[in-house]
Amino acid sequence: MTEAHQANLPIVLTGDRTTGALHLGHYIGSLRARVQLQHEARQFLLLADTQALTDNVGRHRKVTENVVEVALDYLAVGIDPAKSTVFIQSQVPELAELSQYLLNLVTVARLERNPTIKEEIRLRGFERDIPAGFLTYPVSQAADITAFKATHVPVGDDQLPMIEQTNELVRRFNHTVDRQVLVECAAVLSPVARLPGIDGRAKMSKSLGNAITLSASPDEITKAVNDMYTDPNHLRVSDPGQVEGNVVFAFLDAFEPDTQKVSELKAHYRRGGLGDSVVKRVLNERLQTLIEPIRTRRRELQNDRAEVLAVLRRGTMRAREVAAQTLSEVKGALGLTYFEH
Amino acid sequence: MTEAHQANLPIVLTGDRTTGALHLGHYIGSLRARVQLQHEARQFLLLADTQALTDNVGRHRKVTENVVEVALDYLAVGIDPAKSTVFIQSQVPELAELSQYLLNLVTVARLERNPTIKEEIRLRGFERDIPAGFLTYPVSQAADITAFKATHVPVGDDQLPMIEQTNELVRRFNHTVDRQVLVECAAVLSPVARLPGIDGRAKMSKSLGNAITLSASPDEITKAVNDMYTDPNHLRVSDPGQVEGNVVFAFLDAFEPDTQKVSELKAHYRRGGLGDSVVKRVLNERLQTLIEPIRTRRRELQNDRAEVLAVLRRGTMRAREVAAQTLSEVKGALGLTYFEH
Repeated sequence: MTEAHQANLPIVLTGDRTTGALHLGHYIGSLRARVQLQHEARQFLLLADTQALTDNVGRHRKVTENVVEVALDYLAVGIDPAKSTVFIQSQVPELAELSQYLLNLVTVARLERNPTIKEEIRLRGFERDIPAGFLTYPVSQAADITAFKATHVPVGDDQLPMIEQTNELVRRFNHTVDRQVLVECAAVLSPVARLPGIDGRAKMSKSLGNAITLSASPDEITKAVNDMYTDPNHLRVSDPGQVEGNVVFAFLDAFEPDTQKVSELKAHYRRGGLGDSVVKRVLNERLQTLIEPIRTRRRELQNDRAEVLAVLRRGTMRAREVAAQTLSEVKGALGLTYFEH
Repeated sequence: MTEAHQANLPIVLTGDRTTGALHLGHYIGSLRARVQLQHEARQFLLLADTQALTDNVGRHRKVTENVVEVALDYLAVGIDPAKSTVFIQSQVPELAELSQYLLNLVTVARLERNPTIKEEIRLRGFERDIPAGFLTYPVSQAADITAFKATHVPVGDDQLPMIEQTNELVRRFNHTVDRQVLVECAAVLSPVARLPGIDGRAKMSKSLGNAITLSASPDEITKAVNDMYTDPNHLRVSDPGQVEGNVVFAFLDAFEPDTQKVSELKAHYRRGGLGDSVVKRVLNERLQTLIEPIRTRRRELQNDRAEVLAVLRRGTMRAREVAAQTLSEVKGALGLTYFEH
């Protein structure tokens, strides 16, 4: 039994594919909550390079180079490696092994029915040319979750089918070996609305060019705020303006802790007499204040790459210990323990 | 570079799913050749428990219990662990890791087109309920082969598509990383006709109940020979008999080294005047002579299980070293080497 299980702490597994530095969408959608969570749970943070490779064949350099970038983002926002275990997926071979055993417990048809996978196949234009590793990555994800006996997994609502599939595999495995080895997990949905891109598109994404990264310079932040999509019909300051679909207000809702102030701004904007430039100035100040310490910390860390790698190495070793324990229980239950008697 | 590559020796990877003790069909189809091969090649012998699990969910005990049984058969027929590396698949985690990377390089559609898999899916009645681990086992097989940089893989002709798929993966991987890391292999077809079951069915198989195992007692051998399917129209000794499709003659072809004697028996049988019982007596003597030392040696080894496990442990360690070297090259080529700089 692990320390966390003994202490009855929730165990959280979460992480990111390492395909690019993180941005404010990640901050609001997950990073901020993780910084809190590390005080209330035993948190495992996965730098998912292996998973990123499943749809980045030939772009492995992008995947591996971004491992340290994402780690820098984690540490810069306040993830404390003494509290959270930050580790690199490809360096925990136990996950590949566990994944291999779980693969026998799900049918190809079931994987093809997974709505998340269906949608991602559509988005990536794979059609019939789905890499086998991509179709089966939910199984590898289930291995990541169950290797740490995670009890809670933060997800977007589009990821709920993944958690369902994981729990199916848990039940199937435990039933097969007639023993409670793996642990089911609960999805934890973010209470925060998804942050739109600065262009007003539903999703902020580096590849769409509508993101503000966590290392954005003061000028980049100002420019991004100035470029933000507002109400296209709000032509004169005296005109009434629309708050819904207005990216500046979506950002204020997300980042301005003074909700009273945001309500007043919204009311003023709606009745007319409040110019975009004024609201943007408020948001700009807020984002500058938010990002400044993150950017500074990130730059410090970036100059000490050896220390960042040391953090990842320690986290990975700790992750391996936990995953190896679970794997040993899994292999024990299957009787794959020839040399232990 | 391994010793074998330096010495320019062929590297052979072969093995068996561990689902039952081996029989004379295995002896004639592969074991006999392996005993020879170990003098001419660097041979890796895989006890494929992980692969056996892909279609034996819930029957893991059968799979794990037969690992030692198959190993006993190997050693009893003359596999020399000082010459051949005998190892257990599940105890070489590097294979699962390598497999995971290869999975990204093949599409689901390509796996579904594999004729061997298609046929096995039909035989097992999986239809739409194909376990994902079963559909992808050719990839895991490719990992087994390439982990040892095998140059030669003995196969039945039904297994040729597996070798083709392996070599596709090798080329795809090397192309992706723009480096010659993995090695293509050649299929080695057995020159020996497949041994029929004693009932005349095309395939000898323990589960069909038509096999003679390598540990058969003298009485079991005699009974099996007496039960053998011959020519159903050969009613009286004086009748001409048919040699084709006659299991006794198929066995004589396989096991009687005195081909002159076999030819004479066939001619006599064909023209009439040679009774089944006489031919069966010849075969019985031959099989008793063949199996007696195997059975004896097997029994000795069986009484020293600790020594067999020690052999497997040493072989597995040796296999891990080689596989780890290949995996390290694979991960190096993909850039998955964060902690090595």
